Amino acid sequence: MTEKDFRANIRVTIEKVRAENPMAPSITNTVTQDFVANAQLAVGGSAAMIYLPDEGETMAKIARAMYINVGTLLPIYAETIPRTLRALNANKTPFVVDPVAIGLGSLRTELLSHMKNFKPTIIRGNPSEIISLAKLWELTEGEGGKVRGVDSTEDVDTAAKSAIALAKFTGGAVAVSGEHDLITDGNVSVYSLGGSILSTKITGSGCALGGVMAIYLTVASPIIAAFTAAAVFNCAGTRAAELSDAPASFKVHFLDELYKISAADVAESEFAVFNAE
Amino acid sequence: MTEKDFRANIRVTIEKVRAENPMAPSITNTVTQDFVANAQLAVGGSAAMIYLPDEGETMAKIARAMYINVGTLLPIYAETIPRTLRALNANKTPFVVDPVAIGLGSLRTELLSHMKNFKPTIIRGNPSEIISLAKLWELTEGEGGKVRGVDSTEDVDTAAKSAIALAKFTGGAVAVSGEHDLITDGNVSVYSLGGSILSTKITGSGCALGGVMAIYLTVASPIIAAFTAAAVFNCAGTRAAELSDAPASFKVHFLDELYKISAADVAESEFAVFNAE
Amino acid sequence: MTEKDFRANIRVTIEKVRAENPMAPSITNTVTQDFVANAQLAVGGSAAMIYLPDEGETMAKIARAMYINVGTLLPIYAETIPRTLRALNANKTPFVVDPVAIGLGSLRTELLSHMKNFKPTIIRGNPSEIISLAKLWELTEGEGGKVRGVDSTEDVDTAAKSAIALAKFTGGAVAVSGEHDLITDGNVSVYSLGGSILSTKITGSGCALGGVMAIYLTVASPIIAAFTAAAVFNCAGTRAAELSDAPASFKVHFLDELYKISAADVAESEFAVFNAE
Repeated sequence: MTEKDFRANIRVTIEKVRAENPMAPSITNTVTQDFVANAQLAVGGSAAMIYLPDEGETMAKIARAMYINVGTLLPIYAETIPRTLRALNANKTPFVVDPVAIGLGSLRTELLSHMKNFKPTIIRGNPSEIISLAKLWELTEGEGGKVRGVDSTEDVDTAAKSAIALAKFTGGAVAVSGEHDLITDGNVSVYSLGGSILSTKITGSGCALGGVMAIYLTVASPIIAAFTAAAVFNCAGTRAAELSDAPASFKVHFLDELYKISAADVAESEFAVFNAE
Repeated sequence: MTEKDFRANIRVTIEKVRAENPMAPSITNTVTQDFVANAQLAVGGSAAMIYLPDEGETMAKIARAMYINVGTLLPIYAETIPRTLRALNANKTPFVVDPVAIGLGSLRTELLSHMKNFKPTIIRGNPSEIISLAKLWELTEGEGGKVRGVDSTEDVDTAAKSAIALAKFTGGAVAVSGEHDLITDGNVSVYSLGGSILSTKITGSGCALGGVMAIYLTVASPIIAAFTAAAVFNCAGTRAAELSDAPASFKVHFLDELYKISAADVAESEFAVFNAE
Repeated sequence: MTEKDFRANIRVTIEKVRAENPMAPSITNTVTQDFVANAQLAVGGSAAMIYLPDEGETMAKIARAMYINVGTLLPIYAETIPRTLRALNANKTPFVVDPVAIGLGSLRTELLSHMKNFKPTIIRGNPSEIISLAKLWELTEGEGGKVRGVDSTEDVDTAAKSAIALAKFTGGAVAVSGEHDLITDGNVSVYSLGGSILSTKITGSGCALGGVMAIYLTVASPIIAAFTAAAVFNCAGTRAAELSDAPASFKVHFLDELYKISAADVAESEFAVFNAE
């Protein structure tokens, strides 16, 4: 895919979601559910969060894409996530995984290990999470990938090799969020530029991004869905930062811009396409 | 009741809540708890959310009204909701039920079926939820009531028959939210007009409305409580939409207006009273 | 400590947190997690919320301070909180406890009773909660301490005796939030003035304050951490109230001011130091 292809696809993806109002249900952490849902609604989608196993199975069947974020695990997730993964697989429903705080606690490690069998359509994380997941799945070796709570201790480029390895393994897309965003399908990689440092001063920017990737995944391929979401977030973040100099008003402007931004403006935003590796 | 009666009652209800600061505890979904609580506080009430069975029982005893929203069920709800319903009944404490996402999962169906025995004082939902609940309780027959996650696929007028059937059965009030709001006690119906399409672009408007109905229910009859909340929301929504053109800033203005709006202005807002059926 | 000592320490504490970006993980209620996390990020810290026992133990080991708020108890907390308390103790990790809604339900009483054995480094609550906790721990006698859901029915000065008794017992600090804030270590007490009545019209101001105390506790003594957080909140609240006349916009300005306010301005804010009793 060329840069021109990407620009055309971004535009179509944004417009299709606004026209079709697709739902992407979530199993996601309790801290940022409101932000995830409001971001999904702002781009034109619909949100629904669930906790119970049979609800996960039903959603996996009726939804066109789903979002799974392991940020704040509850005991029932030991049952809900495996059963939902099986149902996603059986119904060929694409899904986004956010390996938040990978390494913390035994259930998290167990669930994220188990996900290897289901090859998530999109994996989104910060650099440390992507490096750690590639190691947990034994796709890479060596140092790195220290996660500090929910924060990354590594930068995006350090995680590129892990992201490509994950994408080659899943056959889907991997997105690494940071000072710029790297999206790859293992063959082609894209950098999305823009955004604002203020997005690191509000909780849930990454979760909201993952949730919006799931919305776009209802109408687009993994790499286009992941990249469109990153580009929309970076454009909205850049604009919000022009309107605000502090985190809470930034968040209000950011969500407003997600809603208002034109597909054409995002399609013309700054990014770079190159061969992976 | 005439239109004039409604206008007088709305005014008294709003002012009483501001003077008395009544608490209406909630068992409600995790996605929109912050919005529910802040809306309850903005109109002059007090909020408290709980999950555990004995806490539900205590709240049912000490509170003057309660709010139950089944949006995001957790395993403990299988015990908490039935025990709370029994305590509400034993203490004659009025309560509002929001049958969010009715039809999704076995626990939700079980709990909503069980609620029939306790005749909720107010039932609030979108058109599809109201149609589905009336069918689940075998008060109506036929087609309709398809719920898509948390969204409605039907309009308010289609749900009128179901709303009236539910209200006749419970002896309380039923509120259907949509492009306009229908509130009925089975004999008298009211339409509340106004509001903004932007309220459908933020998550939790319906939940917040249900929570505020519970606040007004601490000082007013079911139909007055339900209608006052709808009228306050529609007035605040209309004003917020004059001040904002996008969802996140709309939400800020909306909550501000809930707090600032005068009882007289709401009492003079646009609505229509007519005989049910 | 003299007033001058306090002013110097406040300044250093604020600047250290901004420089070091310390994480203070939380076990806290689901209603206000977003506000707690965003307040912690706004002052320069980092947030992570958890529910599971082994995650609590790990966090108690790796974090420099932790925040425990019993606002919305879930069944797993019966295991998570005791195991986390033991790990905090074993690792000498300081922690803040918020005895929200003390008196409601058997698990809450059991957990708050159990906490006596672990002497929380900082206890933060409204007047009724502080009076009730001192009685539950049998440090005081007599009337008072009626909690209504999450609201206080008593004023700050009424709780002074209980606060001092608790601080003498724990050897840490106790903060009572109200129309002004009282912070004491049992020997020295401080009043922090300022803030706005609008902070009582939004949910979670107290929780956010407790979460920020945990952030400052990663770099300062209990009384300095508690007092710095109270002073920062009061300064930001005063400023936000100059920029807004309603709760939702107040909250946006308040979080923005937490981020923007200078350490020097907070160090020069209005407070009074005196001997306890």
